[in-house]
Amino acid sequence: MIIRFYNAQILDCSDTFHIRSGDLYVTDDRISYIGPHRPDGPKCDREINLNGNLIIPGFKNAHTHSPMTFLRSFADDRPLDEWLNKSVFPMEAKLTPDKTYIFSIIALMEYLTSGITANFDMYFHVPAVAAASADCGFRTVICGCLNNFQESLEIMEEHYKNFNQPDSLLSYKLGFHAEYTTSRNLLEGIADMAARHEAPVFTHNSETLAEVEGCMSRYNKTPTALFEELGIHNFGGGGFHCVHLSEEDTRIFKDRGLFVVTNPASNLKLASGIAPVERYLRQGIPVAIGTDGPASNNCLDMFREMYLVTALQKQLMHDASACPAESVLDMAVTQGALAMGLFDCDKLAVGKKADLAVIDLNQPNMRPINDTVKNLVYSGSKQNVRLTMVNGKILYEDGLFYINQDVEEIYSKAAAFLHSMK
Amino acid sequence: MIIRFYNAQILDCSDTFHIRSGDLYVTDDRISYIGPHRPDGPKCDREINLNGNLIIPGFKNAHTHSPMTFLRSFADDRPLDEWLNKSVFPMEAKLTPDKTYIFSIIALMEYLTSGITANFDMYFHVPAVAAASADCGFRTVICGCLNNFQESLEIMEEHYKNFNQPDSLLSYKLGFHAEYTTSRNLLEGIADMAARHEAPVFTHNSETLAEVEGCMSRYNKTPTALFEELGIHNFGGGGFHCVHLSEEDTRIFKDRGLFVVTNPASNLKLASGIAPVERYLRQGIPVAIGTDGPASNNCLDMFREMYLVTALQKQLMHDASACPAESVLDMAVTQGALAMGLFDCDKLAVGKKADLAVIDLNQPNMRPINDTVKNLVYSGSKQNVRLTMVNGKILYEDGLFYINQDVEEIYSKAAAFLHSMK
Repeated sequence: MIIRFYNAQILDCSDTFHIRSGDLYVTDDRISYIGPHRPDGPKCDREINLNGNLIIPGFKNAHTHSPMTFLRSFADDRPLDEWLNKSVFPMEAKLTPDKTYIFSIIALMEYLTSGITANFDMYFHVPAVAAASADCGFRTVICGCLNNFQESLEIMEEHYKNFNQPDSLLSYKLGFHAEYTTSRNLLEGIADMAARHEAPVFTHNSETLAEVEGCMSRYNKTPTALFEELGIHNFGGGGFHCVHLSEEDTRIFKDRGLFVVTNPASNLKLASGIAPVERYLRQGIPVAIGTDGPASNNCLDMFREMYLVTALQKQLMHDASACPAESVLDMAVTQGALAMGLFDCDKLAVGKKADLAVIDLNQPNMRPINDTVKNLVYSGSKQNVRLTMVNGKILYEDGLFYINQDVEEIYSKAAAFLHSMK
Repeated sequence: MIIRFYNAQILDCSDTFHIRSGDLYVTDDRISYIGPHRPDGPKCDREINLNGNLIIPGFKNAHTHSPMTFLRSFADDRPLDEWLNKSVFPMEAKLTPDKTYIFSIIALMEYLTSGITANFDMYFHVPAVAAASADCGFRTVICGCLNNFQESLEIMEEHYKNFNQPDSLLSYKLGFHAEYTTSRNLLEGIADMAARHEAPVFTHNSETLAEVEGCMSRYNKTPTALFEELGIHNFGGGGFHCVHLSEEDTRIFKDRGLFVVTNPASNLKLASGIAPVERYLRQGIPVAIGTDGPASNNCLDMFREMYLVTALQKQLMHDASACPAESVLDMAVTQGALAMGLFDCDKLAVGKKADLAVIDLNQPNMRPINDTVKNLVYSGSKQNVRLTMVNGKILYEDGLFYINQDVEEIYSKAAAFLHSMK
């Protein structure tokens, strides 16, 4: 199967960002050609005239909880503890694998509308989450969510083996929910497993001040210092949120090459704080971006996140030049891929996976054109996403989904499931 | 001309927000019926099946500088003074009325994609701004931008008379740029004009700390206290931005019924601060929302602004229940209309102007449905805007513009003008 995009602008993010005009060919699951028009090019199954629109590498949503669409706008505008204990936890207890499957697909659809081609997903009912992605043709990296209440070391190791098959759209990273929900025994078991597999480990880290204070009172250490002592991150990995890292924590992140995955919309909405992303960047810590789950955001939109990453740093640093658009785009496309171990999905180049999105520049929010990269980060919107391709397959085009599902049926099943849970 | 929307959900914002199912008729420029299906309804020129989608009153963009699309992404990620003095001012000096006209139309188009049906626009080249709106069929309230460098009291008074004709899409409010750009003599002249016309006055007020400190050093008063002393707001009006109002300032706002128009995206991006909107609401001060101009935002998207208004208050107050979605929606549709003097555009009701938007609920970011109003504020996006109607005319539908313009020609003229200015 060969698809040719022509009259395209193509975002090259090799060193600095620049945009070249020409053709991009996809052969099966990979990019097979980028360059000027070839009169003697191969016969194509489909040729798509982009009329000057822009091909970008797909965004990577480096932290999310996809099945939580059922809690979107369910209990907003309430204090955090009331929201968690009275609304989120009782509803989550009613989830089943079949519900998880349907609620996940709604999230995958929303990723596609936002040009997101891969998600790093932490939730329970892992087989249902994996099946939803596999059935839709979406690329998902599952993150372990081990804690005192969910899963076990044995189950995590089984998932690690099952979901790390070659040539699969699914992969699996070791992970646990957070220090405050995971016993020291389990943490030691995770460190041991990481050592045996020489594998990176991911977890929620320092999302709130209360979380850090709790860890200090239990261990007289920050979460990051505790993980360092236990050897959790001896083979890398990273932290989700990282709003409240100490100087010593950031030194550990830097030394170990750990990724910060920032979630600005969720942190604002839950009043957790603003992660000092600009400081992390200056210290050389790699940063990726996630939407977090739809219960706390509530939308799964990389354009919103990108805008917030830069705008909040400008505010935090009192400096309108902080965290420029190019850095943010690098986080959203390349750093996310590297954090998730998707080393073939980090940029548009021959031989890389064909995970990409087409951005409509013929919209008023992109005109007139002074700087397309800055437009993308500061002015871009889901409305500009014309097409999203994962692994060489077009899953979303001109508002329609090609994910092997009846969309109306997904919506009606989701509504019925939700009704049955209330 | 009669248009019927059927199979609709209709947002009623009379007291509290609630949603009713049924039909909405538009006769010429006004809403003529809201209620259940009528078998004996009048013959319609067009009947539109909404398939359960939602009709909302159009958003009101209560502070913007539309012609500044030419500076979108022109000089981002630079310190504020460098941005203003080296980039914005020299480019603005090259504007002409014909350029202003074209650049304004691009902003109007973007408003339509975001469900915005009216703008409160402050810029020079007023006749060109007015002509762009009138030619496109858009509703614009022009705000005077008098200052030491632009316009004069005489010109403002002439505009005030010219642009306040009955049955026009255009209207005009007295206004000046800001205290720091306007001499005391001019401020006294504005107060005098406001008294003669019993008219409200609008201005940039306390956008930055430097602005407030400058006024303190000149007058030993805050801008608001100075305006109060001069009688500027004796007949009402309001302030744009209002990031740094003192307690005494807010008392004056409350006593005079002045509107705060908040611009959260611009304030973040220019590192100006976060306006304490929740505090204003608790004090009973009416708050409306504006995008500010595309040089500082960079997009003209009421969904982004609505999300930021609530999320930033949650952060500022350390309280996830601050500034609930319903308050934000009220600001974006109703308070904006009242601030701008559009008393016939504040809600969907029989006899009101037909300024409305259709929101697509059949999108993954709106599913499953727990609470449509919260979905709209927390998860809504331009991608959900199916149709925007101003004064009974459909100006935007399914991605196409009906504004008496050749869109391709607008884009190419804008590009040529921009090129000529560099």
